[in-house]
Parts: sequence; C-alpha cells; structure tokens
Amino acid sequence: MITIGVINVSDRAAAGVYDDEPGKACVALLREWLTTPFKPVYAIIPDEQTQIEHTLKTMADEDQCALIVTTGGTGPAKRDVTPEATAAVCQKMLPGFGELMRHTSLQYVPTAILSRQTAGIRGQSLIVNLPGRPKAIRENLEAVFPAIPYCIDLIGGPRLESNEAIMKVFRPKGA
Amino acid sequence: MITIGVINVSDRAAAGVYDDEPGKACVALLREWLTTPFKPVYAIIPDEQTQIEHTLKTMADEDQCALIVTTGGTGPAKRDVTPEATAAVCQKMLPGFGELMRHTSLQYVPTAILSRQTAGIRGQSLIVNLPGRPKAIRENLEAVFPAIPYCIDLIGGPRLESNEAIMKVFRPKGA
Amino acid sequence: MITIGVINVSDRAAAGVYDDEPGKACVALLREWLTTPFKPVYAIIPDEQTQIEHTLKTMADEDQCALIVTTGGTGPAKRDVTPEATAAVCQKMLPGFGELMRHTSLQYVPTAILSRQTAGIRGQSLIVNLPGRPKAIRENLEAVFPAIPYCIDLIGGPRLESNEAIMKVFRPKGA
Repeated sequence: MITIGVINVSDRAAAGVYDDEPGKACVALLREWLTTPFKPVYAIIPDEQTQIEHTLKTMADEDQCALIVTTGGTGPAKRDVTPEATAAVCQKMLPGFGELMRHTSLQYVPTAILSRQTAGIRGQSLIVNLPGRPKAIRENLEAVFPAIPYCIDLIGGPRLESNEAIMKVFRPKGA
Repeated sequence: MITIGVINVSDRAAAGVYDDEPGKACVALLREWLTTPFKPVYAIIPDEQTQIEHTLKTMADEDQCALIVTTGGTGPAKRDVTPEATAAVCQKMLPGFGELMRHTSLQYVPTAILSRQTAGIRGQSLIVNLPGRPKAIRENLEAVFPAIPYCIDLIGGPRLESNEAIMKVFRPKGA
Repeated sequence: MITIGVINVSDRAAAGVYDDEPGKACVALLREWLTTPFKPVYAIIPDEQTQIEHTLKTMADEDQCALIVTTGGTGPAKRDVTPEATAAVCQKMLPGFGELMRHTSLQYVPTAILSRQTAGIRGQSLIVNLPGRPKAIRENLEAVFPAIPYCIDLIGGPRLESNEAIMKVFRPKGA
C-alpha cells in the first residue's frame, strides 16, 4: 500500500489549541485527485527544526512515503523553520516548486513573497512544503500537483494515477 | 523613532565620483508611501563584502533599523557582492523578493535575469537588495513594498502604515 | 578566436547509445543567432559530478570559453547532478536564469518545475544549464539569450554580436 506523509507543523496545533485542519485539507485534496489508493501517515509537531527533520526522515526512510507534504512554518517569523528542516534532510532541492507556488499565491495576496516554501528529494520521497491555511493549501497544491506523479516516477517511487476529469497530471509520452 | 537603513553600495559613489542618487531615491519613495514617521540612516560604501556585512550588522543590531535597503552591487561582475554579504548576515532568506523583482524588471529589460538581488531577515530587521539606478529602484521597490510592513510585523518590528491612496500595503484581516 | 563550450551530460550519450543531438542543437542555435565567429569545444560525459566539474573547469580555465552550456542532468532523478556540479565550480550564481527558463517551459509542460537548471559565473565564463531535448533547448536558450552577451561583457569576456533580425540581444545605452 502506498503511503503519503502529512505533517502539520504548528506550535499551537501541536499543543492541541487547534484541530488538524491543514492535514485534513491535504488528505481531502489527494483523495479527490488520486485514483490510486494510499494510506496517509499523519504527524502534528511544533515549529522545532530537529523535530521536523526527524519526522521527515522517519516518513521517508521507515514509512517509505512516496510523497510527504508539510503545512505551515514557512514564513519569515523566528519560529518558522520548515524550509530549513526540509533543506537539511533532502539530497536534492527543487526550486521550481517554491517559485510556482509563490507565483500562484501572488494572484491572491502580495504577501505571497514572504513564503519561503520549497520542495526536495530524500531517497525515494518527494517532500513539498505547503502553507498553513486550507484555502492556500488548495491553491498551492493544485498548482504543482500536475508534476508530482511524474516526479515520483523519476525518483523510483510508485506510480500514482489521477482522476483526469478533475486533475490532469502530466507524463511525457511513453512514460 | 523608527529607523530605516539605506546603504548605497558603489565603488564610485564611495570615492565621491557620484552623488548618492540611489539612496535619495529610496528615501523619497519611502516618504511618499509611508505615513509613519521614520529616520533614515545612510551609508555609502565600496563593493567590499566585509564592509557591506559590517554596515548591515550595525544598522540591524545597533541602529535597530526595521528595514534596510541596499542599492547596487547585485550584478554578475567580479566586484558585485551585495547578495553574498546579505546572505552572510541573515538568519533567514526570502527568495520570493528576488523572484518578484526580477520578474517585474523583465517587463522592462531582458537583462533583469542578471540581477542576483535577494532579501532576508537579521534579528528584527528586513534587508532588501535593490538595483542601483533610481528608475529601476522605483520599479523594484514598488513591486515588493505591499508585503514589507506585514513582514516587519511578523519579525517583531514596528508597525508601518502607508498612504493607501498611493501605496496599498497588505495585512491579513485582524493583523 | 572566441570559444564556446558545449557539454552533453548523459550516461547514454557518453556510452555511445545516443548521438550528440543536444550538443549539435546548441551549436546550431548559436550559429543562427551570433554574427561573431566562434569555435565550439565539445564534450560528452556521463552523469558523474566530479567529471562534470572537471570538464567545466577545463573549459573555463584552459579553453577560456566565454560561454559554456550544458545539456541534461537537471531533473530530480538520482543520477541528475549537473546543477550541483555547476554550483560547485562557480564563484557566483545567477538564479534569474533558472527562474526564467522554468517559467518559459511551464507554458509547454507542467513538469517544468522538476528542472533544477541554473547558471553561474566562473572567472570570465558564464555557465548555463539547459535541458536535454533539442526542442526544449531552443525554448530555454531563446528565453535567456538576450541577456547573455551583456553578461559576458560584465565579466570581462569578449563582445558577442547577434543577428538582430532574428535574435535581439540587449545592452544598456553606451555599453
């Protein structure tokens, strides 16, 4: 069974102040778009770099998640360290994800440039940083999702198929 | 009183060959857009990385500038080292600023991609690299300014208010 | 005589499985656009970081290439290491090239964000990563080429002139 990791990085969610709305939003979108069955692996952790790194490593190396999405912790505030944790555990960075997500968010808010979200590869897992609010999660994941299944193919992960009527993913002919 | 740092990085300006047109252009724009009073702190220094780093540190740590803008030194030439100095003193980088400024400048000149300008956070100061020519300074600062006051809020700096009739800044509801 | 380096990074091309279509495509484009005569220096090497670095250094330091273009090896797969090799040998990175090339490729394929291609300066050589397929090479090189001759001017390289009827390059007035 394919596993997909969903990490809600938030001091307040980890303290139980908030419900895991961001994590639920991610899984709802993936269930809407993907026809390939998958099992979500959830984590709700505070904005602590070592803890984020540890969770990313566990989900990549032990749970063998094909995709790991994080929500939150990508802004300029002192406690926002999700991109640093992501870069620390990845062998390769994919700057195009952050560029496209910021470009997309700029259509909605000029403060999109404050997001430092990025993406990268650890082993056979693709890690993608998303924002914290469900509405912004949809806008961002929708923008980059068409490239995600082929990226996972290229790093040796499982083949993900989508419901083409609502989410067209792209693979070169013959792939 | 809020302080804002303005550093003109230029061998020729530092040698007295040129007047500080870029620094004056920055302050004129900020006075046009901001209704919150502020005191500019000026420096004119050569394209020497250690000197740029030292000036950035002093303006952030001692002068407690909420915002520090640099002009010049962002190109591909050997003496252009402003982005390197900025990265060396910042705890966090904000790639979205450089992306948006280059994207904006591309509307005017195809050589916009040669600019390596970036932005980042040191303590409670936001540092933003700008080009050297007054016309390009306006085009660039105008593009990113709507996100600057909220960025300064998020890093614990003072609240900056703008003249909404001519420069609309963005804060999420309730911020 | 001006030299321009063209490196085809590909395990299969280096093993003789493929012909050097990408390298030929690069030189054909440069001959189409440039009126200044130049001598191409070719290399076809596998996706090995140390070998790519060595070839880049030789072409920059010994062959004194004004421009070095690489093709291939910029994706997320394990063997794709061209951007890492480029960053390792450059004194300055030019993020605007990768941003514009990905932005351009996004008009054609959503998987453009998987490309990690970048550009940078080593001494008096500009290094630019390009994709591997001839069609994508044209789309990408066409997008950034107008800025290349002025970039080479700024790093002290030779003056390249283009056929303005088919490829308009940009230099500021007086440059």
